[in-house]
Amino acid sequence: MFSITVRDHVMIAHSFRGEVFGPAQRLHGATYVVDARFTRTELDADNIVVDIGLATTRLGEVLSGLNYRNLDDLPEFAGINTSTEFLAKHIADQLADRVHQGELGEGAKGLAGIEVTLQESHVAWAAYSRAL
Amino acid sequence: MFSITVRDHVMIAHSFRGEVFGPAQRLHGATYVVDARFTRTELDADNIVVDIGLATTRLGEVLSGLNYRNLDDLPEFAGINTSTEFLAKHIADQLADRVHQGELGEGAKGLAGIEVTLQESHVAWAAYSRAL
Amino acid sequence: MFSITVRDHVMIAHSFRGEVFGPAQRLHGATYVVDARFTRTELDADNIVVDIGLATTRLGEVLSGLNYRNLDDLPEFAGINTSTEFLAKHIADQLADRVHQGELGEGAKGLAGIEVTLQESHVAWAAYSRAL
Amino acid sequence: MFSITVRDHVMIAHSFRGEVFGPAQRLHGATYVVDARFTRTELDADNIVVDIGLATTRLGEVLSGLNYRNLDDLPEFAGINTSTEFLAKHIADQLADRVHQGELGEGAKGLAGIEVTLQESHVAWAAYSRAL
Amino acid sequence: MFSITVRDHVMIAHSFRGEVFGPAQRLHGATYVVDARFTRTELDADNIVVDIGLATTRLGEVLSGLNYRNLDDLPEFAGINTSTEFLAKHIADQLADRVHQGELGEGAKGLAGIEVTLQESHVAWAAYSRAL
Amino acid sequence: MFSITVRDHVMIAHSFRGEVFGPAQRLHGATYVVDARFTRTELDADNIVVDIGLATTRLGEVLSGLNYRNLDDLPEFAGINTSTEFLAKHIADQLADRVHQGELGEGAKGLAGIEVTLQESHVAWAAYSRAL
Repeated sequence: MFSITVRDHVMIAHSFRGEVFGPAQRLHGATYVVDARFTRTELDADNIVVDIGLATTRLGEVLSGLNYRNLDDLPEFAGINTSTEFLAKHIADQLADRVHQGELGEGAKGLAGIEVTLQESHVAWAAYSRAL
Repeated sequence: MFSITVRDHVMIAHSFRGEVFGPAQRLHGATYVVDARFTRTELDADNIVVDIGLATTRLGEVLSGLNYRNLDDLPEFAGINTSTEFLAKHIADQLADRVHQGELGEGAKGLAGIEVTLQESHVAWAAYSRAL
Repeated sequence: MFSITVRDHVMIAHSFRGEVFGPAQRLHGATYVVDARFTRTELDADNIVVDIGLATTRLGEVLSGLNYRNLDDLPEFAGINTSTEFLAKHIADQLADRVHQGELGEGAKGLAGIEVTLQESHVAWAAYSRAL
Repeated sequence: MFSITVRDHVMIAHSFRGEVFGPAQRLHGATYVVDARFTRTELDADNIVVDIGLATTRLGEVLSGLNYRNLDDLPEFAGINTSTEFLAKHIADQLADRVHQGELGEGAKGLAGIEVTLQESHVAWAAYSRAL
Repeated sequence: MFSITVRDHVMIAHSFRGEVFGPAQRLHGATYVVDARFTRTELDADNIVVDIGLATTRLGEVLSGLNYRNLDDLPEFAGINTSTEFLAKHIADQLADRVHQGELGEGAKGLAGIEVTLQESHVAWAAYSRAL
Repeated sequence: MFSITVRDHVMIAHSFRGEVFGPAQRLHGATYVVDARFTRTELDADNIVVDIGLATTRLGEVLSGLNYRNLDDLPEFAGINTSTEFLAKHIADQLADRVHQGELGEGAKGLAGIEVTLQESHVAWAAYSRAL
């Protein structure tokens, strides 16, 4: 199995509901360093997994919908705990949509899966992986 | 599949038996930077994999049994080469016990697996993964 | 010159005023990975720069005043752009106060300076250094 | 499942053919930080996955065939886009050959798989994994 | 003293002349992860060292003159060993020119110095610092 | 000012005397990731700070005197707390001796200073810098 991974980041504010979150129930924020990993079983005709430039561009587009935002104010997240693991899935699903729409190039239709990892600090991170 | 990972570290002394270890047969030591990764297929009612605070606390408790110790002196490791990969399993198994005993919260009973990685230097690390 | 450095982190929300900040004028957030570096010209009687345990504890205390907060709501920052470089100075000054009050141990009175670095992402950080 | 990983690096020049590569069609270069990960289901008689010293030596030997080279000039890569993902497979396959030839020790014949990751920058990397 | 640092990278080919370089006399290449650090004694009216967006943009512009190039082919480097430390100075001087030309904003004229660090691998880096 | 830095590591056991060390008074150990930084004001005739290959070799030699050792057993450290900051000075001084003896090349006699940093974990490190 082959993979390529590209990295970007996003800076957001949010709060959580539920006693399990302790002081993180207060409005606070995070930098998420975001790694998007694309897998496939065989390389394409150019000998690559996916166009790394397009992958970086599409990841940046997906993140721009979150960047410098208070996630508590976004209608799409109303009533949702925007945990690191939830956001990993949100970003992975948006990237998957773009793959299916051909926005990562025709060759990207041969991709097998996506994994998105969000590093929230030097001591904690979360990930979500899915098939394509 | 979702995962969250928390990081801590432990500083120990030990020695190895067997020619394969070369100079590491002498009493020496290591800092292990320890990553504990918890996986599950669906998020819980709080939209998380596991309470990251509890995960960090339990990892710290497991490591405290090793920290600032000469592992050669611990009865539980008598006659055992406490290699990095062996210690990864030791820590993973102790975390698994705590999951099964409910010490990572009731929700943690939905966890699918644990992976523990021990980084022994900037150029070498070992890991052990198991189901729960 | 000797130094020791300890690392911790803090997760906050805030917003900026001024066109130079572009989209960061919106309420957003950041994880700051915080490094506090203490310098001195000669080691103390224990052969150390400062008690690394105390240094870590005091850094944690200083950060707890900011952690999981919206800095826009804190009276001490009213009307202030809480930029990464400003926060580096804020934390360094609070640590300096604790040094002067003896909270890092009597030996710490021999410290020469403090530098605080805040990493706001994998591609940007800020620092402030001062004498003691 | 157990694993150990060792890290080394290699510095090469090359160029790519195909519009997808944009400016990387020009002769340029890269440092690849190379991680070789070896997996097995049970530890060997010494309580290890593989002799980490031998693993490091063999990885260094494989990389020495590429190091300080213009890959465009190597007959084995004639007409091939030496992408990061392609090189990950090249290195993994060469390590697999050495495992099968006993060059990582007799115990290494119990290895289950190899994964090779090449980090080409702080924001992009590629990997290839295979069974043994 | 305050500082902010921004990170980018560049991928180049080159060769060296001189026995001290050993196999690096051959045409090879490198990824340089480039950190540009800007210092000043007091923050500006916006409470910052310099506009981090402009700093990132200008660093990217300077690197674009090198990126995906064989440095041996660039007239400005004819007869010069483009060592990591030499390139650190080259980039720092180009950034200094841009500061003096007002391209990092009017406030940037209060900057005290620049340091540029080029990481060529996980085990080696070089830096150059200068006043402004 | 120019600098180059090379990285290696060493794995040791030791114990400390003094209440300030708490549980670290017990025999334990550490991996130190060691960075040796060499500075000079002008580059030499080859356009470098120092031969990076020689610098790496000499650092490895200095570390080999400590590697896989219990420092409590070494006569040179009898009665001494081998703290991270003390070891940074020990290594820096040994490198300085080698510079003065010409073991880093004739050109190295133009070096201005050395800084040695020992990272003992992902959250703590110490350094020592001196003139040459």
